[in-house]
Amino acid sequence: MSSSAVDFALKNYPRFVEELKALLRIPSISTLPEHAGDCRLAADSLATELKRIGMEHVRLIETKGHPMVYGDWLHATGKPTALVYGHYDVQPPDPLDEWLSPPFEPTERDGNIYARGAVDDKGQVMAQVKALESLLVATGKLPINVRVIFEGEEEVGGEGIADFVASKPPELKADFALVSDTELFAPGLPTLCVGLRGMIYTELEVRSSRTDLHSGVYGGAAPNSFVSLAQILAKLKDEEGKILIPGFYDDVIPPSAEELATWKKLPFDEEHYRISEVGSKQLVGEKGYSVLERTWARPTLDVHGIPGGFTGAGAKTVIPAKATAKVSMRLVPGMTPAKAFALYKSFVEKIAPAGVDVEVRLIHSGDPCVVAVNNPYIQAATRALHEVWGKDTVFIRSGGSIPIVGDFDRHLGLPSVMMGFGLPDDNLHAPNEKFHLKNFELGIISLIRFMEEAAN
Amino acid sequence: MSSSAVDFALKNYPRFVEELKALLRIPSISTLPEHAGDCRLAADSLATELKRIGMEHVRLIETKGHPMVYGDWLHATGKPTALVYGHYDVQPPDPLDEWLSPPFEPTERDGNIYARGAVDDKGQVMAQVKALESLLVATGKLPINVRVIFEGEEEVGGEGIADFVASKPPELKADFALVSDTELFAPGLPTLCVGLRGMIYTELEVRSSRTDLHSGVYGGAAPNSFVSLAQILAKLKDEEGKILIPGFYDDVIPPSAEELATWKKLPFDEEHYRISEVGSKQLVGEKGYSVLERTWARPTLDVHGIPGGFTGAGAKTVIPAKATAKVSMRLVPGMTPAKAFALYKSFVEKIAPAGVDVEVRLIHSGDPCVVAVNNPYIQAATRALHEVWGKDTVFIRSGGSIPIVGDFDRHLGLPSVMMGFGLPDDNLHAPNEKFHLKNFELGIISLIRFMEEAAN
Repeated sequence: MSSSAVDFALKNYPRFVEELKALLRIPSISTLPEHAGDCRLAADSLATELKRIGMEHVRLIETKGHPMVYGDWLHATGKPTALVYGHYDVQPPDPLDEWLSPPFEPTERDGNIYARGAVDDKGQVMAQVKALESLLVATGKLPINVRVIFEGEEEVGGEGIADFVASKPPELKADFALVSDTELFAPGLPTLCVGLRGMIYTELEVRSSRTDLHSGVYGGAAPNSFVSLAQILAKLKDEEGKILIPGFYDDVIPPSAEELATWKKLPFDEEHYRISEVGSKQLVGEKGYSVLERTWARPTLDVHGIPGGFTGAGAKTVIPAKATAKVSMRLVPGMTPAKAFALYKSFVEKIAPAGVDVEVRLIHSGDPCVVAVNNPYIQAATRALHEVWGKDTVFIRSGGSIPIVGDFDRHLGLPSVMMGFGLPDDNLHAPNEKFHLKNFELGIISLIRFMEEAAN
Repeated sequence: MSSSAVDFALKNYPRFVEELKALLRIPSISTLPEHAGDCRLAADSLATELKRIGMEHVRLIETKGHPMVYGDWLHATGKPTALVYGHYDVQPPDPLDEWLSPPFEPTERDGNIYARGAVDDKGQVMAQVKALESLLVATGKLPINVRVIFEGEEEVGGEGIADFVASKPPELKADFALVSDTELFAPGLPTLCVGLRGMIYTELEVRSSRTDLHSGVYGGAAPNSFVSLAQILAKLKDEEGKILIPGFYDDVIPPSAEELATWKKLPFDEEHYRISEVGSKQLVGEKGYSVLERTWARPTLDVHGIPGGFTGAGAKTVIPAKATAKVSMRLVPGMTPAKAFALYKSFVEKIAPAGVDVEVRLIHSGDPCVVAVNNPYIQAATRALHEVWGKDTVFIRSGGSIPIVGDFDRHLGLPSVMMGFGLPDDNLHAPNEKFHLKNFELGIISLIRFMEEAAN
């Protein structure tokens, strides 16, 4: 690894950590309107940083929601162009009382940095920025052409960037996308993600009466929105995890026998996974499928919360007029959000108990995708990763959704290199989210070496 | 009605309304710890008022929670003693945005006074106090002996007064109880309530993982507390309203054929009830029972809210580690809270889906009761009501729970006269709770005349 950029990165690494902390202190929670200003602050701060390190044409690109950050460096004549993607927005930090240190006061413990967004995705965005800085400052140039696009709406569906990508703008003209929002399959194991689930995120609202009612006076005659909602939810998925919406599995394209065979060789200990990652007394899910198949290649349905009704301490004897469940489904290759939503909506309307009105709303959606592995960018990535980590790269899928990867493919024809450095126990979307600092460091170096290799 | 007390009441009625408003302005929400001071303020204000009108031995009686207010007047030698009961605590006002005027700023509209607690139970407590004042001030005495006990924990289970009653204290020695916390069956129709449902109020907690999880990463392998909770709830009650807990109906004592026959004669228009009271597209409930049977004489199960999970605006893709449903059951004569809770708890534990832990907690409970109608106090009440309202009294039950009525019977041997003046559309426990002002006025006069008749 005789790279002056790598040397620069190693020398400046302590400063890089401090700069990551500064970004983590900004509570850029995209789903909460009161944090819109913080989202813009995070965008501004990234734009300032891109300018400082020598990127050109740096600016915010406005959307209906939070702005995107753009910058480019296009002087590597004859070399490929990378579209470097990440997101600066984060999930809400609740439940707050389960954090060991405050979510927006980044704290180092045991070689990790703890903060909301540490790994998803600010730590990885900063790894990209610091790789670019190391190359630009140490060598005065980049080995390939680079366009950077960071969005601030990934956690709320990414509508702004999706519209922008669909418009095929000149700013996004590139040969491949470099997406850093995924994880290593295991500590120290270089990993490229080559498949993502899609999703539909919905609200299912049940209305049972005009106003809240006294459960003593009306209990026995008035429908109860919460009971009816529970009855609907219980009919969507059985206790083993099979989704009961008719036709829901019809279009699922299973992984190839070859891909399934490589998954079987991955170092995966189901009992360790259950105890140390999931922390539940038993794993659940469809019969006949392994955990990796169930989380990577099978659609699922989850309920995230049921706002409304009485939620205070103690007792209130009310029949709530309205109950709303936040329900999402993960989709796999072959499925489309439009069809999945239509099947779900019509089934909910059909099974709604007597006495209640139901309304199903689509909040956001994303296509599932698989990316090809037979292209020079994936090959350059595996070379770089082998050099930095000393091991062959494993190809995995992710159960999560990065809808933009599908959009890059569909609208811009770009294959994505999903090179991420999280760990399975990084507590994404949960309290005590963290990023292993060694992975931040090796991530920066891997990205430097990948860009150098991609020039060959 | 040539009663000087009635004349006094009519003359002073505008002042009585202002005094009721003052009490309604105190947000004495017993279930919310931050309103404990307001509960004490309401108790103090009632004690001050009882002293002012000439009641004796007035004092607060402390409990583990909010205090009770006691006062007596025991100089009617040879006459019976009434234990006058009401409660000064109120339900929480949420959802706040559905109130047309603020819940703690009493507002007169269309002959009603709107406020949280207007009818449940501050308006009725003030009707009792103003009846006592009219008698004491206009005549210098009361026609019967009176002990007053007002509690501040009715909406949270009434543990303090239950313990007090169970200790059979000399302060509660009486011949009958006068409870004003019920309603007229229809406007202008004098009504005595002779049966109440009991209840158990519980929390059903489901824990599925150690911490919240990312639904993309773990969806398909991790149990989901909300989905499991919905599956449990859906097994507790079928879509028609039949409770599915084994043995739940075993001890139900149905109303007599005679009582059922009188219910059939009551002026009840099911369609009007559905549209103007319940406001739902269809009524629900067990097949084979009328609405009055279902709400007065059949046990029911309702869900009041499901705190936890993600409840903000927008989307958060989390598998919540924990979900808690607030679930209550109304009980009818023959049933006991202890047995109902045991049946419910063991059934929930039995049907809990794989992968989750469940915990069922009893928050509070109350016995169901029916009161005898063949006693001189009920007869005095019907004479007084006929004189004031010009009609024969109807005997009804209430689907709600006033556990103290059962306690008065069991521990003190007191029959209760449940003489209340609410209306079916008074929005108890709901936004825009009201009390019809004419009923406040006629309520005061009815209570005056009842005490006068009870002396005969």
